[in-house]
Amino acid sequence: MLIFGAEVMDAPKGWEQIEDRLMAEYAFPDFASAKQFVDAVSQLSEDENHHPDIHFGWGYVVIELFTHDEEKITELDYQLAEKISALQSE
Amino acid sequence: MLIFGAEVMDAPKGWEQIEDRLMAEYAFPDFASAKQFVDAVSQLSEDENHHPDIHFGWGYVVIELFTHDEEKITELDYQLAEKISALQSE
Repeated sequence: MLIFGAEVMDAPKGWEQIEDRLMAEYAFPDFASAKQFVDAVSQLSEDENHHPDIHFGWGYVVIELFTHDEEKITELDYQLAEKISALQSE
Repeated sequence: MLIFGAEVMDAPKGWEQIEDRLMAEYAFPDFASAKQFVDAVSQLSEDENHHPDIHFGWGYVVIELFTHDEEKITELDYQLAEKISALQSE
């Protein structure tokens, strides 16, 4: 078994590690399409039982991943990041 | 006509002015109920054509109001704050 270490893993494409959070920002043409993405990410996070912090408004969504139980970025965050990225390319 | 001045208006109950934004924070027992409130606020903001910045995750929602076109808090923000507060008491 490989030892998982957040510091040696590459962030998935479109994500970067900022102050101990795995973050991605997405741009949209209006509020409704930003909200639609928030809905999809929310559904995914319920399915995965791992919940991001989500910031959004007119034309943007920022997703922030962190494993609160372990107070660090874990493999759960990387996995969810990959799945969120996949939503965007659907 | 009364001159509107954000600095002399009282923030609606549950709201406070923080760094030029009108802010309110709501607590929830889980992610799903936080998301349900986000859905209601989003629908309201589409109906009013005035959109907040929304921050949420497991158990919380933070709403941030500001009139970007005027770069300040305006009557639109106070009106939307009142309507968001009313959602909570429904």
